[in-house]
Amino acid sequence: MVQIAIIGMGLIGTSLGMALRSADEKTSPLGEIKVVGYDQNKRAVNDARGRLAIDTVAGSLSEAVREAQIVVLATPVLAIKELLPQLATLLSPDSVVTDVASTKGDINRWASEMLPHTIDFVGGHPMAGKEQAGSGAATPDLFKDAIYCLTPSPQSRQHALDAIESMVVTIGAKPYYIDPIEHDSYVAGISHLPFLLSIALAEVTGRSRAWTEMSPLAASGYRDVSRLASGDVAMHRDICLTNREAIIHWLNEVAGQLLEMRDLIAQDKAQALEGIFTHAKESRDAWMNARPNMRPGEEDFNGPQDMQRPSLLGRFGKKR
Amino acid sequence: MVQIAIIGMGLIGTSLGMALRSADEKTSPLGEIKVVGYDQNKRAVNDARGRLAIDTVAGSLSEAVREAQIVVLATPVLAIKELLPQLATLLSPDSVVTDVASTKGDINRWASEMLPHTIDFVGGHPMAGKEQAGSGAATPDLFKDAIYCLTPSPQSRQHALDAIESMVVTIGAKPYYIDPIEHDSYVAGISHLPFLLSIALAEVTGRSRAWTEMSPLAASGYRDVSRLASGDVAMHRDICLTNREAIIHWLNEVAGQLLEMRDLIAQDKAQALEGIFTHAKESRDAWMNARPNMRPGEEDFNGPQDMQRPSLLGRFGKKR
Repeated sequence: MVQIAIIGMGLIGTSLGMALRSADEKTSPLGEIKVVGYDQNKRAVNDARGRLAIDTVAGSLSEAVREAQIVVLATPVLAIKELLPQLATLLSPDSVVTDVASTKGDINRWASEMLPHTIDFVGGHPMAGKEQAGSGAATPDLFKDAIYCLTPSPQSRQHALDAIESMVVTIGAKPYYIDPIEHDSYVAGISHLPFLLSIALAEVTGRSRAWTEMSPLAASGYRDVSRLASGDVAMHRDICLTNREAIIHWLNEVAGQLLEMRDLIAQDKAQALEGIFTHAKESRDAWMNARPNMRPGEEDFNGPQDMQRPSLLGRFGKKR
Repeated sequence: MVQIAIIGMGLIGTSLGMALRSADEKTSPLGEIKVVGYDQNKRAVNDARGRLAIDTVAGSLSEAVREAQIVVLATPVLAIKELLPQLATLLSPDSVVTDVASTKGDINRWASEMLPHTIDFVGGHPMAGKEQAGSGAATPDLFKDAIYCLTPSPQSRQHALDAIESMVVTIGAKPYYIDPIEHDSYVAGISHLPFLLSIALAEVTGRSRAWTEMSPLAASGYRDVSRLASGDVAMHRDICLTNREAIIHWLNEVAGQLLEMRDLIAQDKAQALEGIFTHAKESRDAWMNARPNMRPGEEDFNGPQDMQRPSLLGRFGKKR
């Protein structure tokens, strides 16, 4: 049996517990799984238990991780920075720590500085989410067919990779190995920039004196482009503060693009404007078309089916 | 019987035809309806007929409008400017012209300049759409429960208002009377700004040298915020060129907001950043919560249930 501790019972932590507990132990490379949940907020962890996301509620961080082979940190990024030194003294030797946060560079660095060498840290980031936060929005199929980024350090040992990859496969996601710095630079464009655009839209319209009159006219376009503004504030804040350079790059790019379009509109440059609109549409259409279920390039992924890794069912596999 | 000509068999024109033809003639204030369709593109109009959006394909603009009591212009904005002088000589006296375009100020002005005084023009704009263009994406329930802006001029006669309002009610939408200039200023914020943000996102990410590596990681957040970039290019271009001032205002606002957030991130100002995120979230959440089916403020609408307009079933009603 594998014992998995989940620290932080928000949307992702609770969904992860639900997905793990609803997995078939006969086909999961982890075999039988026990999920222990912990959250500073007692109500969150009790909610998660009520939703069958965990087997056991832990009363303390220590109790949560003491007997866990896998520890999943599912808190906002900066809370992980606080948790790591505490965990350093609490974890059982040879346990493997992972996280689910949206930035990976800082976290990988903190982990290598703060955790003892007997503990492996393998950063993770499931490319799945919702604008609603909290255990109430959790669902066991949140990770189904989603790309799950894994950012091991060069020091990560094989058994640690096996453990985390097995967990990812168990919840129906696709492991995707990537360098943490590369990860942060890419997700700044495809994930962090989108939420900042949503926030900017909701903010400038919402604070307008005309909002009362405008808002009844807003329909599905506004709903979708502003959707991410309803996401978790602490999560967004911590992402910005731990992925600054890349996010600043993209904010400059997008502001420049918006002001270029403004100038073309002001100068009545129909053709140049149409050129940008056409190029953007082609790019977006190609992205959508390339991916059934929005998951393109499956053949390029370091997914389990390509990897031929005999150790996948190793240390953590099928021990019952 | 009311004969309705639809000029332009794209997404909106075809959906409108489908909605009109699937309406129950017993409950529609228009009674029995005949829909005649015309499009410069023969294939588009034949597709629309194949999808049961029209009763009759017209071979020419003249044939389409000759016997129509209601003429609906469902082309991009600038094509309407070309169509109006032609229609001026073709329309039957006392027919009513409307349109479905996303900007209303210029169109209202053109109509009053170009159409004879025997013809009434009542501008319209259904707050409904899709990113896919063309008759293939049309659906008869596109307008169900949608706000349908109507921008009559002070000269519009009662029978013209009755006709267009009856059409709006027949397709399941909610008539919402608004001044054309006010309309353009509001939709710039809640509709035109969102599509420009989508385009900017798709453009800056899609042209990046890292797009090949980034794009597989893009998930539902990217999909939703970039969705409108897949919309019709000519429609977007014409909207920008006929609603310049309002759109430029909003582009300046949003670029300023993005650069303010950039500076706060660069300066590590966590609290100020959190303040903006919180305010944007509250505004967006309130908007979503206030509207079951995204249609808030129903009691404020000049909807048919409030209007007590006995003439609603007048000239165009129930003549069979």
